[in-house]
Amino acid sequence: MSHGHTEAHGEHVPGVPEESRPPHGSRIDAYVDRYAMRARGMIASEVRALFAVASRPEVVSLAGGMPYVTALPLDVVGELVADLVARRGPVALQYGSGQGDAHLREQICEVMRLEGIDAHADDVVVTVGSQQALDLITRIFIDPGDVVLAEGPSYVGALGTFSAYQATVVHVPMDEYGLIPEALAETITGLAATGRRIKFLYTIPNYQNPAGVTLTAARRAEILRICQRANLLIIEDNPYGLLGFDGDPLPAIRASDADGVVYLGSFSKTLAPGFRVGWALAPHAVREKLVLAMESAVLSHSSFAQLAVGQYLATQPWREQIKTFRELYRERRDALLTSLEALMPPGCTWTRPGGGFFVWMTLPEGLDSKAILPRAVNARVAFVPGTGFYAGDEGSQHMRLSYCYPEPSRIREGVRRLAGVIREELELRDTFGSVTNRGRSGVDTPGPNLA
Amino acid sequence: MSHGHTEAHGEHVPGVPEESRPPHGSRIDAYVDRYAMRARGMIASEVRALFAVASRPEVVSLAGGMPYVTALPLDVVGELVADLVARRGPVALQYGSGQGDAHLREQICEVMRLEGIDAHADDVVVTVGSQQALDLITRIFIDPGDVVLAEGPSYVGALGTFSAYQATVVHVPMDEYGLIPEALAETITGLAATGRRIKFLYTIPNYQNPAGVTLTAARRAEILRICQRANLLIIEDNPYGLLGFDGDPLPAIRASDADGVVYLGSFSKTLAPGFRVGWALAPHAVREKLVLAMESAVLSHSSFAQLAVGQYLATQPWREQIKTFRELYRERRDALLTSLEALMPPGCTWTRPGGGFFVWMTLPEGLDSKAILPRAVNARVAFVPGTGFYAGDEGSQHMRLSYCYPEPSRIREGVRRLAGVIREELELRDTFGSVTNRGRSGVDTPGPNLA
Repeated sequence: MSHGHTEAHGEHVPGVPEESRPPHGSRIDAYVDRYAMRARGMIASEVRALFAVASRPEVVSLAGGMPYVTALPLDVVGELVADLVARRGPVALQYGSGQGDAHLREQICEVMRLEGIDAHADDVVVTVGSQQALDLITRIFIDPGDVVLAEGPSYVGALGTFSAYQATVVHVPMDEYGLIPEALAETITGLAATGRRIKFLYTIPNYQNPAGVTLTAARRAEILRICQRANLLIIEDNPYGLLGFDGDPLPAIRASDADGVVYLGSFSKTLAPGFRVGWALAPHAVREKLVLAMESAVLSHSSFAQLAVGQYLATQPWREQIKTFRELYRERRDALLTSLEALMPPGCTWTRPGGGFFVWMTLPEGLDSKAILPRAVNARVAFVPGTGFYAGDEGSQHMRLSYCYPEPSRIREGVRRLAGVIREELELRDTFGSVTNRGRSGVDTPGPNLA
Repeated sequence: MSHGHTEAHGEHVPGVPEESRPPHGSRIDAYVDRYAMRARGMIASEVRALFAVASRPEVVSLAGGMPYVTALPLDVVGELVADLVARRGPVALQYGSGQGDAHLREQICEVMRLEGIDAHADDVVVTVGSQQALDLITRIFIDPGDVVLAEGPSYVGALGTFSAYQATVVHVPMDEYGLIPEALAETITGLAATGRRIKFLYTIPNYQNPAGVTLTAARRAEILRICQRANLLIIEDNPYGLLGFDGDPLPAIRASDADGVVYLGSFSKTLAPGFRVGWALAPHAVREKLVLAMESAVLSHSSFAQLAVGQYLATQPWREQIKTFRELYRERRDALLTSLEALMPPGCTWTRPGGGFFVWMTLPEGLDSKAILPRAVNARVAFVPGTGFYAGDEGSQHMRLSYCYPEPSRIREGVRRLAGVIREELELRDTFGSVTNRGRSGVDTPGPNLA
């Protein structure tokens, strides 16, 4: 537990000698008056404890975004890493360059070509997952108080990173076709009028996390035009782009502008997250800063992990494997959408993703997803409440449902359980009125037996 | 090349329309007016280009700190990673927890026991090398302008990280017995008088990088007492502690104080850097912040890398392997010290490390190590000039010589070449006076043919 509420204490507590420290193992934070400003916002999420419970096998988790790595040919991967050590051990086990393995960066350019990107390996930086690319981009661009534009809702991990660097996130609304260009233009104009400094637009154009919607080709062009006109950098985060269920992927925004877009990619969803290999493709000057930031942050990524991914791409039919993943996730999406259709009470609505991992569900008026979570976990199903995907207080009427990890029969069972909980909530609402307020404190009270 | 010198430009260049950007591939930095304050100090080191040349095989590099991983049983490592995928593939390839694999954290506690540390796995965070631990500690403690105390000279990677977070580094002098307690006490008192806020003392007590000296047991106790009295956190960075050439390691400072010390460890030198597995052991409240910072920075470290290290520790005679490394490095240290003794001109002095990777050499009056570097590379030997190991302008009369990577015969040849270059410099000095000024610009001019 964080002790953020005691952090207002001054430098010294009167009457306590300076050298006194709480006994070892104490939960009192002796460093409370010494953290950096940015650390004061680092507080454990209130739903964290609940997710620990939700990871038990009897709970159907529609919460996590874990890819189904069991679909990989594990025997092949095992041989491949053994072969890597035998042939290139002294390189795989040694420090690498801060920018990342040169051959892997060439291979990454091959992967990006599938989305219409023509890039040079020299403009790529390999990172510890694309999360680190987000961290480094934020590190080099954000001073406290700078504004970041992001879809509302947006990826919880990005919002956490922006907040760790004390950025102000301003959300731009989406609809089923993705970010709304007119809303973006209005937001930029509105902020300009107040003198706020916008550093970049952060967007997930494909199968957005958490909304599951995809930005249309026409809107990509419009949004790029708006950002070019405003001289606004775009951070295009694209972990799911190759996991579309219908035909070829749309060209990336980066395919149309090499100088105004930093593109983030990842092998976590197309291969496996366990290597933590992601990347940033950036305009040259930004790439130089990224490498310096990378070196300062971790010196270099794991050579072993990078070469393992490189060996996989060089020797395995990776495009075929992505097709396998696509078919698998399509079947799970269908299982989720069909069960929602069949089982959810009237008043619930949801998005219909054309790829990726997530469905975004909207609850009937008066229901609060955070209040429902402990009851759902008690009924052995978990989801992520919508509030985590906004920088402010929005989102309580929404939840994110992931279909990537559980098998279809488990997905159906999970939806059945969740529908039961929501029906009960609706009955309570109809009997006692809105359950929102009761709900808000639900997570922190020992009310429902979660064990 | 960085363009730091143009960063003083204002928000807009008069006469240039906002939407204009330099053409793709241009080396002009279109983002120059948009970086965060902290990024302005991110400038590529001037000796960087030189080290690219120094990595050619004909150059004896006494510059890098790369461990000699070829001494590992590569066949065993290959089998081990293949076995890992076969037995635990779905875990090794999946996301892990932000704090790191629980079993590996237990094993890390075993390793730390060798230095007298009694720790609980719950207080350990696994990081992407101990460099990331340094980055995260700095992230949670340092506001711009805060003071960090560090030995003078100190690890270049730590100084880079402190500077990336805009800390002010104040050096505390060392002698052959390590950090000088009286100097530390005086520095703390002096800073207190000026009202500066010191956030922590950063120290490498064993076989210090770059000085090669070790803090005596008596001084460890004294320094701990001084820091406790001043309520000053100690960051004890200990990558080389198990690589001592004479008997058992000294107890870590952390062995005497669980609440006032954050201990950083690494498998980069006792196993291999290619997995990038390091750790921080921290007081409970600090550990909680570290996990949140870790998640924000990279979500989690590579499960594959962590489990590979865990499997190595569980199945291999790792203590024996460390002995093998020790003997290997001892032989190389002896080769370096013996050659220095035999070949260096009078006026050169150097430290005599009892373990680790580095010797710190002091040049005769009037010689400048940065000026000598291009001449040395031209003579096919490389080292790191002393200036990189100070936050300020000091260090030009020093150089760091690493004996970890080249074989003994190569070390002797490298010293022979370096001694030749230094003799020539001495002759120039004796003929023309100090060569310092000529030297300062040497790196940036095309004078010596480095190709």
